[in-house]
Amino acid sequence: MRSTEVKNRTSTDGIKSLRLITAVKTPYLPDGRFDLEAYDSLINTQINGGAEGVIVGGTTGEGHLMSWDEHIMLIGHTVNCFGANIKVIGNTGSNSTREAVHATEQGFAVGMHAALHVNPYYGKTSTEGLISHFKEVLPMGPTIIYNVPSRTSQDIPPPVIEALSCYSNMAGVKECVGHERVKCYTDKGITIWSGNDDECHDSRWKYGATGVISVASNLVPGLMHSLMFEGENAALNEKLLPLMKWLFCEPNPIGLNTALAQLGVVRPVFRLPYTPLPLEKRVEFVRIVEAIGRENFVGQKEAQVLDDDDFVLISRY
Amino acid sequence: MRSTEVKNRTSTDGIKSLRLITAVKTPYLPDGRFDLEAYDSLINTQINGGAEGVIVGGTTGEGHLMSWDEHIMLIGHTVNCFGANIKVIGNTGSNSTREAVHATEQGFAVGMHAALHVNPYYGKTSTEGLISHFKEVLPMGPTIIYNVPSRTSQDIPPPVIEALSCYSNMAGVKECVGHERVKCYTDKGITIWSGNDDECHDSRWKYGATGVISVASNLVPGLMHSLMFEGENAALNEKLLPLMKWLFCEPNPIGLNTALAQLGVVRPVFRLPYTPLPLEKRVEFVRIVEAIGRENFVGQKEAQVLDDDDFVLISRY
Amino acid sequence: MRSTEVKNRTSTDGIKSLRLITAVKTPYLPDGRFDLEAYDSLINTQINGGAEGVIVGGTTGEGHLMSWDEHIMLIGHTVNCFGANIKVIGNTGSNSTREAVHATEQGFAVGMHAALHVNPYYGKTSTEGLISHFKEVLPMGPTIIYNVPSRTSQDIPPPVIEALSCYSNMAGVKECVGHERVKCYTDKGITIWSGNDDECHDSRWKYGATGVISVASNLVPGLMHSLMFEGENAALNEKLLPLMKWLFCEPNPIGLNTALAQLGVVRPVFRLPYTPLPLEKRVEFVRIVEAIGRENFVGQKEAQVLDDDDFVLISRY
Amino acid sequence: MRSTEVKNRTSTDGIKSLRLITAVKTPYLPDGRFDLEAYDSLINTQINGGAEGVIVGGTTGEGHLMSWDEHIMLIGHTVNCFGANIKVIGNTGSNSTREAVHATEQGFAVGMHAALHVNPYYGKTSTEGLISHFKEVLPMGPTIIYNVPSRTSQDIPPPVIEALSCYSNMAGVKECVGHERVKCYTDKGITIWSGNDDECHDSRWKYGATGVISVASNLVPGLMHSLMFEGENAALNEKLLPLMKWLFCEPNPIGLNTALAQLGVVRPVFRLPYTPLPLEKRVEFVRIVEAIGRENFVGQKEAQVLDDDDFVLISRY
Repeated sequence: MRSTEVKNRTSTDGIKSLRLITAVKTPYLPDGRFDLEAYDSLINTQINGGAEGVIVGGTTGEGHLMSWDEHIMLIGHTVNCFGANIKVIGNTGSNSTREAVHATEQGFAVGMHAALHVNPYYGKTSTEGLISHFKEVLPMGPTIIYNVPSRTSQDIPPPVIEALSCYSNMAGVKECVGHERVKCYTDKGITIWSGNDDECHDSRWKYGATGVISVASNLVPGLMHSLMFEGENAALNEKLLPLMKWLFCEPNPIGLNTALAQLGVVRPVFRLPYTPLPLEKRVEFVRIVEAIGRENFVGQKEAQVLDDDDFVLISRY
Repeated sequence: MRSTEVKNRTSTDGIKSLRLITAVKTPYLPDGRFDLEAYDSLINTQINGGAEGVIVGGTTGEGHLMSWDEHIMLIGHTVNCFGANIKVIGNTGSNSTREAVHATEQGFAVGMHAALHVNPYYGKTSTEGLISHFKEVLPMGPTIIYNVPSRTSQDIPPPVIEALSCYSNMAGVKECVGHERVKCYTDKGITIWSGNDDECHDSRWKYGATGVISVASNLVPGLMHSLMFEGENAALNEKLLPLMKWLFCEPNPIGLNTALAQLGVVRPVFRLPYTPLPLEKRVEFVRIVEAIGRENFVGQKEAQVLDDDDFVLISRY
Repeated sequence: MRSTEVKNRTSTDGIKSLRLITAVKTPYLPDGRFDLEAYDSLINTQINGGAEGVIVGGTTGEGHLMSWDEHIMLIGHTVNCFGANIKVIGNTGSNSTREAVHATEQGFAVGMHAALHVNPYYGKTSTEGLISHFKEVLPMGPTIIYNVPSRTSQDIPPPVIEALSCYSNMAGVKECVGHERVKCYTDKGITIWSGNDDECHDSRWKYGATGVISVASNLVPGLMHSLMFEGENAALNEKLLPLMKWLFCEPNPIGLNTALAQLGVVRPVFRLPYTPLPLEKRVEFVRIVEAIGRENFVGQKEAQVLDDDDFVLISRY
Repeated sequence: MRSTEVKNRTSTDGIKSLRLITAVKTPYLPDGRFDLEAYDSLINTQINGGAEGVIVGGTTGEGHLMSWDEHIMLIGHTVNCFGANIKVIGNTGSNSTREAVHATEQGFAVGMHAALHVNPYYGKTSTEGLISHFKEVLPMGPTIIYNVPSRTSQDIPPPVIEALSCYSNMAGVKECVGHERVKCYTDKGITIWSGNDDECHDSRWKYGATGVISVASNLVPGLMHSLMFEGENAALNEKLLPLMKWLFCEPNPIGLNTALAQLGVVRPVFRLPYTPLPLEKRVEFVRIVEAIGRENFVGQKEAQVLDDDDFVLISRY
């Protein structure tokens, strides 16, 4: 079904060169639909802050809480409005091969520059099944494989990645397993993005990673840009670690959603099963903002604590 | 949910000025999925032939045989690849207000320039219901209302159109009811596109219509451009009438689908309930092409008759 | 995909014998979801009133305003709760062959006793396309074909029906075209249900129709039962005509929806594009109830006029 | 939206008493659609073999590879054909609260007796989010909570279960974490089903579990029935352990799918990302069948090894 119109194509090499990719938050209206005005503002902030790519509907962007038509629409929207200024990487992965195939086909048809593919979480499969799954989608366009065993319950072992490396569309791996794994890949010339904000500085400067696919860059894009572009900087890394630790005190994107609402750049609306961090954590966030400097964070408003009642939790949307 | 990114916005006036809009055919692969390569080629041919807009997934494009995710994907694809060169008008109408609202919201989110909205066919409704239906979608962006009682079983009467004319997004009407109705509207300054190829010359030059939303322009875009742009031309109109008559000998797009397959620009694949025209009609088409001149038709190959066995009919896709 | 479990199967002859089939209303909660408690009560009333079958999600039941998953769920629910006491006929027809095939397969899988299939409205097709469309679904189970040109814009001509009569699953036709057409079929031994309440008495007793697929029986099931079972009764027919005329003063089910709300058996909730009848018509309905006798209507409460403000109109659900 | 028709209701106590529940396999046709004839035969075999309940579309039944409409249809079909003879427990859980709410509402509407709810896998959430998620669905009907950290990457800790135990619909927990956890719950009177075939004998007879939700019972229902009903039987348990070990040598249901195809009761069709076990494992299975006795397994045909070419792998369906 692939289109040959080249207008929106990016070479796999074009993807391999990206150092700062943000797994962008999806903001909601009070009825649970997408808040596209807030979304557009987040993307513009990312572009201005130096992010070179965005993951649309990643786990951070709550792709698993979207219907596929919402998801593809958001990819198409992002390409249409921002595709000239930032690489749009659609998380069209799924634990169902059928869904991954369908979504990836549609995502490339609406112009996404690359696909992010996770291994089949929850259902899991054999090594042969893993390879078969990825082989169904790799021919469609530039692809980043995503390894996050702490979510999928199943590590993608290096032999699988190596078996897929012959595909010209294989851009690299978003790897969450740690420095040793990163080094094992980069030694072989495989492009790696760190999937852990707290490890990305060392992965980048000590273990050969190309860059990061970041959650924290939703909040402090400029600082994350510095961390990836301006050479080793242990002081900056140290300064950011309390933020990163706070961000992941509960499963992501709970922290991020809470933080962006506190910064006044998204409405405090949560799609269940996510709920905001509790009051003491919100107080802590305001202190972290102060410590790092409000000017380094997205948005213009003062960071607020917000009351429990300020949050809207949605189960039907 | 509306985005404020202005990049893809077109003013309602920008829509009102279009004279030649093609209700473009959707071509299929043998398994029934979209054939995007053939589609892209059709759109490029339209742009080169002088069409200023396309209806994506109209009745001609078989929007009623698409799932909504296919439909929105095709709109997004068209905007992404061709939106700078042609106006993309998504047929996001439905006889279900819910579906029309959802699809229109998504269509504008992926960048379509205008929506085409039909009245609720089959289910039908009261005059009050008609107005309520259209009022749900008109605030979303530039809109063309489509009146085709021979499909919907219900005429949209002029008072409804007049009641909607106060909306700044109301671009005009694709009207199929005839010259008198066209004149009634154009006398009042309402923009009209003829929805009947065989009437469009007179509608344009004698009754004040702005242009046509055409099926025939899928086949002879240059001649339809002449018909709409180069002044009264009864001879050209006369020359085209046998083609137009042939095209509508069975419900559209049966004739068009058959013709484009015979011209070698789409695969001879039909989604049921459409089936190709019979052999004698296919023979007749080749003669019509000869009479009008092959060079005026899209595609480069010789027009072929095709055998019954050449056609693939699909019910599951 | 057909199951061979015979538990819920009904022979085609079992369908052919039904005289009173109600095209049952789908009631809604204030948020637009189905009101299953009210629905169950409506079905029980139909069973007690003598209806032998129900059409689930017909045009009266607003199948065209349902998502397919809602539609199949409602069929499955009806079979599960009431299938032992009333025949459940799912309106799994569509103008898209794909959708008709998918829905019919699912409907029979959840136990519906027969399918109702309309010809492709709005999109329309050729005679050959009509036959191809129906042939895709007829092998799946007992089938009633529905001919309503005032909605579909295309008559199903007798040769099509005759071509389909060889299928053992072909139960008969819900015919709306009038007495002459009815007689033409019944003379040939084809089972016919009148699709027009105001003609059903004469169709049944003078032109050989087996019975009626009725809207009015939602309101007065016992009287409609008499009309179909107890021999010619011009007086009763005459008595009911003002109600039938009122019911269809606007496209069905606008009148029915308004009436059932006035009778207190459903919430006054409308899915757009349907809106309630205006005040003067609602006053008229109360008078019609008085004339025919409240005891002949469904529900126990006094018929009320209801204010405009009592009605809830929904576009997102 | 809940129906009050009581015909298909089962009390929570009715669910709590079940000792042998089979997480039934979903068989496919060569095009990937459900093979309902084979499915019906599997269910009949379960009923005859003594299973008291089935999980429809569990992880074993590959609910994660179904569209929701397929899933609800299969629940409705099972209730309709077999609901009088076996309890039908729909796996209407999801990592998206919206999907869980929608599917559970639909599942109960088509008559399922209970819902199985997993915690949000992959996306994960906070403890507060977990509780909020389950509270959205618990009011809908009898519910079994499913804890399988090896798939979800997140343990449901006892305090969450205890917080939910106040709901009258809370039937119990399918627990995979081990004997100690099982005992912790059964000591408090919470109903537990073992989610691990190889532990279920001891869980049942030594740690107070009520029974098992079994994969192995797809193959040897009678022996699993003995294991749960006929008192401690270390010899039988020992005899079955090689089968259980074989079944889970790759992520379930890879082994089960392979085994049922080898036994000739389902077609050798796999929806990706599942692929069959390799030849040496298939040879091993035949030996295991011989050791346990062919007569104890489902089906009548001789157990076959099958060639690689016999298997059909499907990615679009």
